[in-house]
Amino acid sequence: MTQTVNVHLLPSLTTRQQLAGKTVVVIDVLRASTTIVHALAAGALEIVPCLEVDEAREIARNSELPTILGGEREGLKIDGFDFGNSPQEYVPENVAGKRIVFTTTNGTRALLQCRLAKRVVIGAFVNCSTVCSSVGDEPAIDLLCAGTKKEISCEDVLLAGAIVEQLQQTRGPHIVLNDQALLAVGAWRSIQDNRMEPEGLAKALAKSQGGRNLVAIGQQRDIEIAARTDQFEMVPELDRESWQIRAAIDRSG
Amino acid sequence: MTQTVNVHLLPSLTTRQQLAGKTVVVIDVLRASTTIVHALAAGALEIVPCLEVDEAREIARNSELPTILGGEREGLKIDGFDFGNSPQEYVPENVAGKRIVFTTTNGTRALLQCRLAKRVVIGAFVNCSTVCSSVGDEPAIDLLCAGTKKEISCEDVLLAGAIVEQLQQTRGPHIVLNDQALLAVGAWRSIQDNRMEPEGLAKALAKSQGGRNLVAIGQQRDIEIAARTDQFEMVPELDRESWQIRAAIDRSG
Repeated sequence: MTQTVNVHLLPSLTTRQQLAGKTVVVIDVLRASTTIVHALAAGALEIVPCLEVDEAREIARNSELPTILGGEREGLKIDGFDFGNSPQEYVPENVAGKRIVFTTTNGTRALLQCRLAKRVVIGAFVNCSTVCSSVGDEPAIDLLCAGTKKEISCEDVLLAGAIVEQLQQTRGPHIVLNDQALLAVGAWRSIQDNRMEPEGLAKALAKSQGGRNLVAIGQQRDIEIAARTDQFEMVPELDRESWQIRAAIDRSG
Repeated sequence: MTQTVNVHLLPSLTTRQQLAGKTVVVIDVLRASTTIVHALAAGALEIVPCLEVDEAREIARNSELPTILGGEREGLKIDGFDFGNSPQEYVPENVAGKRIVFTTTNGTRALLQCRLAKRVVIGAFVNCSTVCSSVGDEPAIDLLCAGTKKEISCEDVLLAGAIVEQLQQTRGPHIVLNDQALLAVGAWRSIQDNRMEPEGLAKALAKSQGGRNLVAIGQQRDIEIAARTDQFEMVPELDRESWQIRAAIDRSG
C-alpha cells in the first residue's frame, strides 16, 4: 500500500483543514519536543500545552493535581514559573507524578494547527526511531515543523528529513513525498557523514537559527542533549479531547 | 567584508519591505526563468512581465514595438497568445527584435515582491554562474524562489542551493546564511553525485512538483533544457522604472 508523507516546513505552510483526519508528527527540536519527551520519560503525568502565559497560570491555579508551570519566552524562564524550557530541568525529582502546564510559542502554535487531526504525536531526535515505528503503518503522515518565530528553522527540518528517510527505508518505493519532504531528506542526507556521531548532529543543530539562539543565551548544552538520537523509546501523544500530552504505549507491538 | 545571503523558499515567506534596497535573484526554474533567459539570448528586445492575462493583452495592444504575447496557465499556452511558456518556442526566428508581453503566475508573483528592491535579476540553471558573478560583490543578496501554485517546489530550491554554494566558494567563511539558505545548499549537495551530468540534474528536477506537472502535460523535454547549466553567459535584469526585463551587461568585468 502506498504511504503519503508530507512535510510542512512551518505551521503557516499548511492549514487545519489540510491536516484534518491525518496523523501528524509535531517537531520542535530546540526545545519543546525534546523537553516534552524528557519530562514524560522522567515520570510527569501529563503536559498541558498553552499558547499564552496567563492561560497557563489560570490552568495551573485551577488544577486539582500536583502541578508545575513550565515554559519560556525568548528562550528564558517566565517570571513566577517553576521551570523554563530546558530538558535538563525536567528530571524525576522535579516532575515525577506531576502535571506540567507548559507554554512555548513555536511548539504550541504548531499543535494548534492539529485541532482536526486524527492523531498527534511529538517527535524529537531523542525519540526518532520510536516515532517512526509508532506512525509507520499509517497511510498518510504529516510532519509539521514548528520553526522559530515564524521562520523556517533547520533543526526541525533535519529531524523531518531523518524521519522521512527512516520511513523510506521501511516502505521502499511505496512512499509518496511532497517537495518539502524531498528537501528535508536532502538536507538530512547532506549532513550524513556526521550524523551517526552525536557531536556531528549537535554541530549541525548549533548552526541553525534555533541553535544560535540557544548559544546566545548560554544554553549550548541543550543542543547536545537534543542531539542524543533514540535516547528514549517513548512517544508523547496529544489527547485532543482533554488537550493533554501523555506518554503513549508503543503501538508497533 | 561579510556577505549576507538569504533564501526565501516562497514569495509569501518574505515581504516587499524585507527585500527593500536589496539585490534579489528571482528563481522560477520550470519554466519562467529559463524561458526568459532563452528569449533574451535569442534576441528579444525586452520582456514585460504581467500577472493577469487581460493586462498582458492590453499592454500588447498598446505597444508601439513589434510585440508578441507569451505565457501559460496550468502549463498550457493561453488562448489567442502567440507562444506558451516553453523555452523551445523562444528562438530567434520567433522573438528576435521583438517585445514579449509575458504572463505566468508563479514567476510574476515573485517579481511583484521585489517592487522595492535595489536590483532584480532572473536566475536559472542555464545562466547560474553568470548570475553568481553578476551579484557576487553585493553585500546582501536575496534568492527568491517562485514555487508552484503557492507551494515550495524543489527545482527552485535546488538552484538557490547551487547559487549559495558558488557564492560560498568565492567568499569562504565571510558569508552569513539564513536557515533556508542552509537547507537549500544541503538539498543541492545531496544530489551532488549526479549534478555535473545534465541527466542527473534533469532527473532531480523531474522529481519535483514543477517537473511532475511538466511530465503530466508531455513537456518533459523542457526539463532537460532547464538542466543545461551555464548554457548562457547572460543575466536578465528587471528595470523597475519601466517594469521591463532586459539582458544586462555582465558587471563582473
